[in-house]
Amino acid sequence: MDHDRAPLTAGDLGERALIERIAPRFGPPATGEVWSGDDTATLRAPGAELLFTTDLMVEDVDFKLSYSSGFDVGWKLIAANASDIAAMGGRPWRAVASIALRSETEVAFVEAFADGMAELSKELGLGLVGGDFSSGREISVSVAMLGIAPDEGPVLRSGARVGDVLCVTGALGGAAGGLLVLEEGIDGPGSGERGALMAASQRPRPRVNEGRVLAAHAHAMIDLSDGLAVDLGHMTEASGVGCEVDLDAVPLHEALGWLRDRRPQTDPLSLALTGGEDFELLLCLDGSELSEARARLGEQGTSLTRIGVVTEGPARIGNKDLDDWRAQGWEHLHNR
Amino acid sequence: MDHDRAPLTAGDLGERALIERIAPRFGPPATGEVWSGDDTATLRAPGAELLFTTDLMVEDVDFKLSYSSGFDVGWKLIAANASDIAAMGGRPWRAVASIALRSETEVAFVEAFADGMAELSKELGLGLVGGDFSSGREISVSVAMLGIAPDEGPVLRSGARVGDVLCVTGALGGAAGGLLVLEEGIDGPGSGERGALMAASQRPRPRVNEGRVLAAHAHAMIDLSDGLAVDLGHMTEASGVGCEVDLDAVPLHEALGWLRDRRPQTDPLSLALTGGEDFELLLCLDGSELSEARARLGEQGTSLTRIGVVTEGPARIGNKDLDDWRAQGWEHLHNR
Repeated sequence: MDHDRAPLTAGDLGERALIERIAPRFGPPATGEVWSGDDTATLRAPGAELLFTTDLMVEDVDFKLSYSSGFDVGWKLIAANASDIAAMGGRPWRAVASIALRSETEVAFVEAFADGMAELSKELGLGLVGGDFSSGREISVSVAMLGIAPDEGPVLRSGARVGDVLCVTGALGGAAGGLLVLEEGIDGPGSGERGALMAASQRPRPRVNEGRVLAAHAHAMIDLSDGLAVDLGHMTEASGVGCEVDLDAVPLHEALGWLRDRRPQTDPLSLALTGGEDFELLLCLDGSELSEARARLGEQGTSLTRIGVVTEGPARIGNKDLDDWRAQGWEHLHNR
Repeated sequence: MDHDRAPLTAGDLGERALIERIAPRFGPPATGEVWSGDDTATLRAPGAELLFTTDLMVEDVDFKLSYSSGFDVGWKLIAANASDIAAMGGRPWRAVASIALRSETEVAFVEAFADGMAELSKELGLGLVGGDFSSGREISVSVAMLGIAPDEGPVLRSGARVGDVLCVTGALGGAAGGLLVLEEGIDGPGSGERGALMAASQRPRPRVNEGRVLAAHAHAMIDLSDGLAVDLGHMTEASGVGCEVDLDAVPLHEALGWLRDRRPQTDPLSLALTGGEDFELLLCLDGSELSEARARLGEQGTSLTRIGVVTEGPARIGNKDLDDWRAQGWEHLHNR
């Protein structure tokens, strides 16, 4: 009786059969390359500078199966890595994945995870060329990604100059707002807003095309993965500069008002500054280039907002020290 | 009172301070490259074909803290990846690491883990250029590694030709024997043998120099990570050939006799065929090249042993089908 059959698990199938089941989603390999099925993948490197990064997501820390599908997890893992490549002005090129599963993890979850990785990879022109499985008591997944640096050279965090204007792409706080919606099960009229916030958290879109355009203008760039306060702190420290951020100028995700109506203790600005995972780009550029950069991003339908200036120091957001905000940002491992 | 102080943990320190503490072990970066501290590392790719692989190790599945130090785990993680590169005839070039720690994991463990990675990386000329931390209920660590393919092109698994001789480097079964020593606490006179077996399990040496020499001779090559039976099966299947292996010719680790004296149920040949993690190389080459290949490996102090021949089929080891042996080999996730 089929309807009584227990779902097929990773342990039923085993490593090799699991690989055979998901590998076809990621092929065929590029011409002249070998992907999957040998000791390593083989790659025909372009004659450019390469970018190399990795991102790790652990069950119940970085995602929860109570509200994230396998597809969501796979998508977000690719997005987080691609966002790091975007922040250098590069484009995603090749990636490998490491996947630890519980033996009772359903094969359907693994397939959905692979589908999520494959769909965003296809959009980005990224080749998923290999991987490794192990088992564990919790699901943990990591991707290591190679990118191609822009012709202008990679945009580092350390290039901010005193007098530069500080800008962000898009709007902030949506991912943190979406996490609240998911964690607290917030609902009510306004399914468009609710869906937009959840999508910001679960299906972030890395700003790859935007990063490539901005590489021609930015002195320094970083992606907003840990929240504006933390990531701005990384940039000012790496560059040896300070900053002033105008709180009124920080672009807030348009659905945060909806969230505050349903959850009065919500502070949209605080979500924008300390929430993290928006995967927007923060950059410094010469003020004279702002209008051109803004026009070029506008062609892609993406806004570019001036939120402040680079100073000699100290680093301030509104009338507070950046560090006061930063203490509220997310950091792995730290006991609170 | 210092001696009463609890050991410093990863949770006490937090992600950023942990990175600052271990990153110096892996620098300074190569000229013109950025390692660690930005969104991605930047790499100056050589004009060669690249190799790309990843390997994942999970606590209590792939290693146990009851007998493995942080140094052992870090060393072996690099070794397993480098062995995959070696099996293509390549040399390790750059790597990134993903590390999930329990918040109560001692900082001393993390430092030793980093030291183990750093020591073997230095020996191999490998640059560890970045990484990511998360937390979890168990320790899981993965490395993604880039290698440079040999001038002759990468040596695939799929190139074995009927009539080729089958060879292995070094001796087999030592890693599986070492695991028994560690798991069962086997001891007794003969500390040299005991130490040699434990080292084979805990501090394997990837055959990188050997692989580079053999790239000029081998039609097909694979590293022995899952045991001779399983890995030979991968090679014959990928090549569409069979094989005959002479059991008397399989080179056994010299300390396995010591182990059998202390543990009578030990079958050294079975450990060699199904044990895995020896990280020796298995290859096929034209018989006319054997003596030259053997002489060139001999200059490095490494033996090359002819264990059989490639046939049209079927794949046999001794007087049994390869699949009968293979069923005893290690596979992740599979419920037994």
